[in-house]
Amino acid sequence: MPQPGKILLSVTGFDPAVWLAALQKHAPDREIVTEPASADDPTIRYAVVWKQRPGVLSGLPNLAAIFSVGAGVDHVFQDPDLPEVPIVRSVADDLTERMSEYVVWQVLDHHRKGPRYRRQQAERVWNEDRMQPAARDVTVGIMGMGILGRDAAEKLKALGFRIAGWSRRPQAIGGVEGFAGDAQLDGFLAISDIVVCLLPLTPATRGILSKPLFARMKRRGPLGPAILINAGRGGLQNEADIVAALDNGWLGAATLDVFNQEPLPATSPLWNHPRVMITPHAAATSMPDALVPPILAQIEAFERGEELRNVVDRQAGY
Amino acid sequence: MPQPGKILLSVTGFDPAVWLAALQKHAPDREIVTEPASADDPTIRYAVVWKQRPGVLSGLPNLAAIFSVGAGVDHVFQDPDLPEVPIVRSVADDLTERMSEYVVWQVLDHHRKGPRYRRQQAERVWNEDRMQPAARDVTVGIMGMGILGRDAAEKLKALGFRIAGWSRRPQAIGGVEGFAGDAQLDGFLAISDIVVCLLPLTPATRGILSKPLFARMKRRGPLGPAILINAGRGGLQNEADIVAALDNGWLGAATLDVFNQEPLPATSPLWNHPRVMITPHAAATSMPDALVPPILAQIEAFERGEELRNVVDRQAGY
Repeated sequence: MPQPGKILLSVTGFDPAVWLAALQKHAPDREIVTEPASADDPTIRYAVVWKQRPGVLSGLPNLAAIFSVGAGVDHVFQDPDLPEVPIVRSVADDLTERMSEYVVWQVLDHHRKGPRYRRQQAERVWNEDRMQPAARDVTVGIMGMGILGRDAAEKLKALGFRIAGWSRRPQAIGGVEGFAGDAQLDGFLAISDIVVCLLPLTPATRGILSKPLFARMKRRGPLGPAILINAGRGGLQNEADIVAALDNGWLGAATLDVFNQEPLPATSPLWNHPRVMITPHAAATSMPDALVPPILAQIEAFERGEELRNVVDRQAGY
Repeated sequence: MPQPGKILLSVTGFDPAVWLAALQKHAPDREIVTEPASADDPTIRYAVVWKQRPGVLSGLPNLAAIFSVGAGVDHVFQDPDLPEVPIVRSVADDLTERMSEYVVWQVLDHHRKGPRYRRQQAERVWNEDRMQPAARDVTVGIMGMGILGRDAAEKLKALGFRIAGWSRRPQAIGGVEGFAGDAQLDGFLAISDIVVCLLPLTPATRGILSKPLFARMKRRGPLGPAILINAGRGGLQNEADIVAALDNGWLGAATLDVFNQEPLPATSPLWNHPRVMITPHAAATSMPDALVPPILAQIEAFERGEELRNVVDRQAGY
């Protein structure tokens, strides 16, 4: 049996220590380094990355695969010297469940008038909103019907919401009204009272949540103008356009977990907009103890000769 | 075929007009009145009530059944001259679904640190809580495992939460750790990170949410001290004890939809307690168009000779 391949952990933007500790804990017999011995270190077989140091992977002659410690891989592609090896995204029940929690939480917070009741409480006002629609009268439209979108759809369906899904390619999902591609985006927006964005960030989706899309959203639904929830990536949204759309009545409210610049600058007008809920990129935290075991299991399967799963389509960018 | 029986609608505390309109719309051929012709009016066959005018039902010789336009019937029993006829509670998918929406919403708001993130937003602070537990590490304990409790349990289970249930009599429900009666209340409280109260208000449950119960709650869980959500009835809770338990660390937070006096007086210290969420008895609004058809269907079935369903156990009080 060949020796287990060495792993390079390359993480920037946050402390790699927790990821190193998790790799060492779950793979005690495998060598793990945070820098290659040289730019052309032949001993590195796998890279586990979050926004890897640009160029760090380009000269490694025996690199077999790159694993992202997140569901998204846009951070991997920021590296202009990315070698032509398979890129694997993280798929883990833990990540999926946390994202669905977040989506259901924020859909319900808008549906059940959380902002209104909290404002009333601050003013000691007792006033029930008798126009409370039932879930069955509200359509949640999900942009991005991958693993995350489908799981959120299931859980929202169980609460009684009507579900629409928009994806690049047509998909048939039970109980979901499906829309695909640019041609069907208008139809999707026309029926969605709450739009949840879980799209990957790619050249095709960058900036999609901007004025032209907001202009086509539903104006009069059971909750008022359409509501936006973006738990995908900040690069999907134009933040000035969100503020303008809130102020001109195109958008009723927005929940944003991601931003073009993170942390969101203190000067952003989003912080104190009365109809914006902000969370600090906390929708679905990548927990090392949940994500490292599936990565190691893939590496072990690969070393037994099996194929890698959840490999990114480099053409599509996700 | 006998003539359809006359209905007396007796509603106090809010405008009966919407209920009268719904009864007239759904039963155009039936006579509906809001007062009997006399105290011993022999033509009244059915009463549809919310906190009926005390004594209004006592002298009606041909009254066959009383229908409550809500899931609870404590308001019916406030009448000291209640005749000995069957009392029927409202059971409707609409009511059940609204209540489950509310419970899931508030469980998620505490689980996902809604109050913390909203406070941070007000201060323009970007700070992810990395101690975010997964749903599978959090136990939601439901007091009252009737139709509402079981439906909420199902929906919380689907999100991954562990569920405990406490009820008067033992019940076996898949995926729910069951506890019953006074003897098992301690065991239930010992494992519940979030306690959701959906109990009926009866002489046995009045004031149950008070100091002795808070003293036995979990002190150290993945979310901190136990969290209380009361969407049952205000009479179940001692409000001074809730404030004291929040302030001495027995309770981490509370969501209250119901109060001993409604509207909650402006002088209540609950209004501006930083760890209390208040909604104005809005968890599961009784919508006339959803509740009237099942009541009329029961009346029609009764007139065909069928038995009434959802009849209250007068001994138990619910």
